[in-house]
Amino acid sequence: MRMAELCETTGVPVPTIKYYLREGLLAPGRPVGRNQADYGPEHVKRLRLVRALIEYGGLGIAAIRELTVRLDNPGVALFELMGEAQKTVTTHDDPRPGPVRDRAERIVAELLERKGWQDAGRNPAIGTLVGVLAVLDELGRQDMVAALGDYADAAERVAEVDLRVMGAVEDREQAVEIVALGTRLGDAIVGALRRVAQEHMSQRAFDF
Amino acid sequence: MRMAELCETTGVPVPTIKYYLREGLLAPGRPVGRNQADYGPEHVKRLRLVRALIEYGGLGIAAIRELTVRLDNPGVALFELMGEAQKTVTTHDDPRPGPVRDRAERIVAELLERKGWQDAGRNPAIGTLVGVLAVLDELGRQDMVAALGDYADAAERVAEVDLRVMGAVEDREQAVEIVALGTRLGDAIVGALRRVAQEHMSQRAFDF
Repeated sequence: MRMAELCETTGVPVPTIKYYLREGLLAPGRPVGRNQADYGPEHVKRLRLVRALIEYGGLGIAAIRELTVRLDNPGVALFELMGEAQKTVTTHDDPRPGPVRDRAERIVAELLERKGWQDAGRNPAIGTLVGVLAVLDELGRQDMVAALGDYADAAERVAEVDLRVMGAVEDREQAVEIVALGTRLGDAIVGALRRVAQEHMSQRAFDF
Repeated sequence: MRMAELCETTGVPVPTIKYYLREGLLAPGRPVGRNQADYGPEHVKRLRLVRALIEYGGLGIAAIRELTVRLDNPGVALFELMGEAQKTVTTHDDPRPGPVRDRAERIVAELLERKGWQDAGRNPAIGTLVGVLAVLDELGRQDMVAALGDYADAAERVAEVDLRVMGAVEDREQAVEIVALGTRLGDAIVGALRRVAQEHMSQRAFDF
């Protein structure tokens, strides 16, 4: 198909498609004639992935390019690719060095050991966890810190559902999409459900 | 204590404290002498809450003012106050009207009924949920939509931990803090733990 049809099929405007081509997010079409190129279903698929990562994954152009380069490199194993996709949607705030951070790091290390999760020790999410625990500690919310193990058990249940959904992955493109979007949108789903469950439960607990 | 000491104790700069006073986030001190006022532990507590809501709750000045007005109004019941605090940290994207949204709304209504959560039907998180399901549907990720019930069970576990932590609430100020921060920071904790658990589990599942 030509550029105009690619635009019509995906709903992505022509100037945007040209921008993605220049930025290397989309492979060039097969040249036909002087100024024209032919695009196939793989371009439609890639455009949809790029739009989804931008709109719902909240990723920037650079992060998407990095992901698509790995996606197109058959030397990158599927497992590695999925890890990269997950890390792309994980923000990492470095807590200030000091005794509070040291304490938070110790608590996280103990949790990883207790759960047998040491193999995930280099996940950027560990940095997020340490940062949030340091904040809670500084705010005097040791009660929430103490509940970490219970949150971990609940998060494990969420991850079990995630893995079951991921088990249906058929190709690499889909793997990137499902991990990046599943992680981002899955956070929104779990967060929303958590609020609804909270409200339901607290209406019973605090109804006075 | 004087303004300078209030600044030193809380780490909030004097111009910022003056700004919060002007914006009504902080009650005026007891006047002593011409241009001076005396501040007490309640000011320290309130300043810490305001800083925490801004820095870690991601709330704007207007949202915090609304919360603090209710906080200082003894006519607002604790349960209602906690609900307000929770809703303040819940963003709500309205999905475009159409068959996709209708379908998502039906799925959510069915879930609420199955879980017995109809009383939480006006929670803004329901809007988030409908929006995310609509997106997943449009992206062809019906597999994630189908896993909604399992995510709800897992989220229920998270909410159980939340409620246990909230059970220790001692005063209204603490109730706002623990609900607003607990919801926001709790999302970060569960999200981070979910990624760690995912990585641990997928290293076993996809290790080839």
